[in-house]
Amino acid sequence: MGELVFVGLGLYDEKDVSLRGLEEARTSDYVFAEFYTSLMTGLSLERLETVVGKRVAVVSRKTLEDDDGEPILQKAEKLKVAFLVPGDPLIATTHIDLRIRAQKRGIKTKIVHGASIVSAAIGLSGLQNYRFGRSVTIPFSEPHSVYETPYNVVAENKARNLHTLCFLDIKAEEKRSMTIEEALKILLSLEEKKKMHIVTLDSLAVGIARAGAEDSLVKADSVKSLLNYDFGSPPHTLVFPAERLHFVEADALVKLAGAPESVKNMAR
Amino acid sequence: MGELVFVGLGLYDEKDVSLRGLEEARTSDYVFAEFYTSLMTGLSLERLETVVGKRVAVVSRKTLEDDDGEPILQKAEKLKVAFLVPGDPLIATTHIDLRIRAQKRGIKTKIVHGASIVSAAIGLSGLQNYRFGRSVTIPFSEPHSVYETPYNVVAENKARNLHTLCFLDIKAEEKRSMTIEEALKILLSLEEKKKMHIVTLDSLAVGIARAGAEDSLVKADSVKSLLNYDFGSPPHTLVFPAERLHFVEADALVKLAGAPESVKNMAR
Repeated sequence: MGELVFVGLGLYDEKDVSLRGLEEARTSDYVFAEFYTSLMTGLSLERLETVVGKRVAVVSRKTLEDDDGEPILQKAEKLKVAFLVPGDPLIATTHIDLRIRAQKRGIKTKIVHGASIVSAAIGLSGLQNYRFGRSVTIPFSEPHSVYETPYNVVAENKARNLHTLCFLDIKAEEKRSMTIEEALKILLSLEEKKKMHIVTLDSLAVGIARAGAEDSLVKADSVKSLLNYDFGSPPHTLVFPAERLHFVEADALVKLAGAPESVKNMAR
Repeated sequence: MGELVFVGLGLYDEKDVSLRGLEEARTSDYVFAEFYTSLMTGLSLERLETVVGKRVAVVSRKTLEDDDGEPILQKAEKLKVAFLVPGDPLIATTHIDLRIRAQKRGIKTKIVHGASIVSAAIGLSGLQNYRFGRSVTIPFSEPHSVYETPYNVVAENKARNLHTLCFLDIKAEEKRSMTIEEALKILLSLEEKKKMHIVTLDSLAVGIARAGAEDSLVKADSVKSLLNYDFGSPPHTLVFPAERLHFVEADALVKLAGAPESVKNMAR
C-alpha cells in the first residue's frame, strides 16, 4: 500500500521545513518537490537534498497540471512518497486536485502543514486577522486586457470596513515575481478607469517583501510614497487596510511598519 | 543589545517547529513559551525542552496581558530571548502588542513563521482560499448574553457567495476547547432567534478536528448530521461553505471530506 505525504516547506529556504516534515521526507522512498506555485528565493536544491538526505526530483507545472501528476501518483501507488511544496501545501488548488486523484486511486494521503504567506502577511502587516475580507491575486496583465477583480475586491472589502490581502502574480518559468510597484501601477490604472476612489495616490497601503527571510521588510505609507520605496527583491505582498483602524492596528503600522503618525487619525 | 525572536510552533506538537525556529531557540539565552492562545494538544513541555536543549519557561495570559510581558522584555533588553508561540506568532493580537512594546524599548524583534490554523483549515476544507470572506471566533456564551457576530459574519459572507472560517473559543485555564457540536448549537440558537435561514439543520458545514495531528479528521455534511458525528477530542474548527461551489470544491468535499454526493448539486 502506497502513501503520498504533502509536506509544507514554509516561506523562504530549506530551514523552514518542520521537524515532522523532515521526518516524513527522510522516511519516504521517493521525494518530489515543486517550486512554481511560490518562489522560495532562499532555497537551493542542493542544500535541500543535504538536509533531507535524499535526491529530490523537481516537478514542473506541466507534470502536475497537464499530466495530472502521473509520475508522482505512479510511485505513490506502491511506495511512500513525500511531495515537498512551498508554503502550506493545500493552499494551492493544484495540490487539492492531486490529493483528490490520489484518493481516487486508493493512495492514502497525509498533510504536514507549513508556514503560509496567508498568515505570515496578515501577521506582519500588524492588522487584525478577523478584519481581513476575501483575498485576491493581482495577475500580470495580458496586452489589451484589463482584469478588474483585484480593484473590485479591495472596493468590496473597504465598503465593509475590511482589509484586503493581495498576492502578487509569479511567472515561475521566468523566475519572475510581480513587485509592489508593478501591482500599485496596475491598481492605479484601474482607478483611473473606474474612479471610485479606492486606490488613489493618497490611499494607505502596506508592502511586505520577503516574508520569512532574515531581511524581510514591511513598510506602510501612502501609495504615492510606496511607489518610490525600495523594497528590494521579491517575493512581494500587498495589503490595503480598511479606512478605519483599531487603535492597536494604527500603533502597529506606525511602530512596526514605519507608517506616518497621521495614520493614527484613522483609528477609532 | 538584546533581541526578541518570536518563533511559531505550528499546530500540534514539538515536531511542528521549523529548523529555523529550532536554531533560533537553541542560540537564545532564554526561552519562553505560551500555550493559552491555542492549545497544542500533542505537545509535552518535557519533550519540547529536550528538542530545544534548554529550559523553557511557560508564561501565562496574566504575564502577557496584565503585566505587559514584563519578564520577557526585561531579559530581552540585554540578551537574546526566544518566545515560542503556537501557530504563526503574529496572528494573536497579544503578540503584536508585545512586539510593539519591545520595539518601543529598543529591543530588536524577529519573526520565525509557523503553520497556522488559518491556512491549515482553509486547505483541509478543500475549499478555495480566495473564496473565504472574513473569519470569526465563536465564543463560549456568557449566561443571559447572546453574541450575534458569528451568525452575522456567516450571513454576510453567504450573501456575497463566500465561505466562512470559524475559530472555536478556548478556555486555556480549564484546558477546555469548544467542540463542533457546541458551536453548531450556538449558531442554531441564533438561527431560531433571527430566522434568516443561514445556519439551519440542512445547511452544509465542514468540521475539522485536530488539524496537523496524525489523527486529524475532516467531515463535510449537513449541520444535522455533524451534530451527531464523533469528531473526537478538540481542537475543532468549523467552516461554512458558500451556497454555490466550484466543481473542484464540490469534488474535494465529497472525496476528501466524505460529503454526500448531493453536494455536487451546489456546483456550477
